[in-house]
Amino acid sequence: MIQFGRKKFNGLKIYRNKKQVKETAYLNGQFLSRDKAQISADDRGFIFADGVYEVIKYYNGIPFRFDDHMQRLQNSLSKISLNFDCTLLKEVFYTLLERNNMQKKQAGVYCQITRGANTRIHSVPPYPSPTVYAFTFELPSHTENLQNGIKVITHEDIRWLRCDIKSISLLPNTMLYNQAVENGAGECVLIRNGIVTEATHSSVLAVKKDQVITHPLTNLILQGITRNAIEEICAKKHIDFIEEPMSEEGLFEVDEIMIASTGSEITPVVQVDDRVIGNRKPGKVTQFLQKEFFKTLEF
Amino acid sequence: MIQFGRKKFNGLKIYRNKKQVKETAYLNGQFLSRDKAQISADDRGFIFADGVYEVIKYYNGIPFRFDDHMQRLQNSLSKISLNFDCTLLKEVFYTLLERNNMQKKQAGVYCQITRGANTRIHSVPPYPSPTVYAFTFELPSHTENLQNGIKVITHEDIRWLRCDIKSISLLPNTMLYNQAVENGAGECVLIRNGIVTEATHSSVLAVKKDQVITHPLTNLILQGITRNAIEEICAKKHIDFIEEPMSEEGLFEVDEIMIASTGSEITPVVQVDDRVIGNRKPGKVTQFLQKEFFKTLEF
Repeated sequence: MIQFGRKKFNGLKIYRNKKQVKETAYLNGQFLSRDKAQISADDRGFIFADGVYEVIKYYNGIPFRFDDHMQRLQNSLSKISLNFDCTLLKEVFYTLLERNNMQKKQAGVYCQITRGANTRIHSVPPYPSPTVYAFTFELPSHTENLQNGIKVITHEDIRWLRCDIKSISLLPNTMLYNQAVENGAGECVLIRNGIVTEATHSSVLAVKKDQVITHPLTNLILQGITRNAIEEICAKKHIDFIEEPMSEEGLFEVDEIMIASTGSEITPVVQVDDRVIGNRKPGKVTQFLQKEFFKTLEF
Repeated sequence: MIQFGRKKFNGLKIYRNKKQVKETAYLNGQFLSRDKAQISADDRGFIFADGVYEVIKYYNGIPFRFDDHMQRLQNSLSKISLNFDCTLLKEVFYTLLERNNMQKKQAGVYCQITRGANTRIHSVPPYPSPTVYAFTFELPSHTENLQNGIKVITHEDIRWLRCDIKSISLLPNTMLYNQAVENGAGECVLIRNGIVTEATHSSVLAVKKDQVITHPLTNLILQGITRNAIEEICAKKHIDFIEEPMSEEGLFEVDEIMIASTGSEITPVVQVDDRVIGNRKPGKVTQFLQKEFFKTLEF
């Protein structure tokens, strides 16, 4: 007898996949059942993390800043010298949403492009045949986090020095985020040489005297699409948007902190390590930005 | 008509795979044709570079410092909190060498262990099912490089801050090595905050006044197995082996430079960027260490 769902085994909870409708994924020109999506073990994405990716959120079938995501993907590809034209992806993503009945939902589309299979040599092969993998997933807003805020931890930013590339070389990010989870936190804010850069998969912004402060766009952070949206809202609403490095100690001298990303949208931070921020309540500027952000989604 | 080998196409050389005997690889308990070795596109090795690896050289079927490699692999696994027992690999590697007729050759065994397929979440899944992939390849000594030395370039060390883990998060290494190749060089020596750390896939050692100098074993470099072998030779032959940081400018004040790795063994460096080292001839200490190193291989 096959059992689905949670099951107790030797006192440990074992998680099994629930029986579910087969998901459709996209791999190298084919739409196929996601559990059949297989790549060569010699793919440079598997051997060298030689690839880049994007996650796009669709609100009831309408993508949030699709062109910005595609532009960033094209930039990431260009920065790792991987020649691939992203224009066909739009259609692929719509088909995926359709086949997975995600048009009326809040859905994420994940898309990864790698340099494909080859003999294992560090140098770039002259004629790579890229691997393109994409799938969809449900990505509802985290209402509770958005309303009540989250705790974050801080950690040294141990990542590489080209965080402007959205690469799949993400082992450090997973290690750091895992530490957040183990500490009951929702994100891990990274500190490089005493300066707050960003978090493991979101931008970090602070508010001090009604000014929004965040790290400038350098090689040390990703150009966040939601961060861009916040910058535009600030411009429209005459809120100062200051791009300057903030020290780790500076984190405790600000009025508000928020993280921003495709998945977390604009999430207030109410605790950093053991220290409470803004009386453990989301700040007023953060809430205003949230409200304006969600207005832009009322298509 | 299918054509093999090099073919001219629109004036460009196209490289095609030569028809060859099928190679046997190992994947998750199975020996199979390497071109059939496929992994799930949801493998955390492919999605997050969440895995580690080793390359072991076999000289006529006899592995070089097998236990050191296994110890390092076990350490890498432990540092990324991936629970996997490596003891069974020894047998796997011998079987691979046998099936690929590599017992009488200089062969490399590549082995990679990842956290396996899972839903894409940054945090570590509670019960991962690791993926183990291994294959062999011919790895003859680069006689010309060993005798005449190579040119290297220098570049800022853009890698992460846990280079003591032999992880597959290698995009920076491939980008940096590729720059070496594009500049007609054999390696790229990395400089972190003005200090020489190591190269993209080898240790860097210098000789000054008959003393061997190399970066100390910190989080910034990998514990090189060949570097270890050199340290032991030095101890036995009463050559000072000094582990201390050397500045980039220091590179041009030394008498000799060499790189060391499983693949390059002990290779003299005779040019760094545009500057000639030691009259463009391998130095005497480097040559002595090479000689002693190859003596240890006379099983």
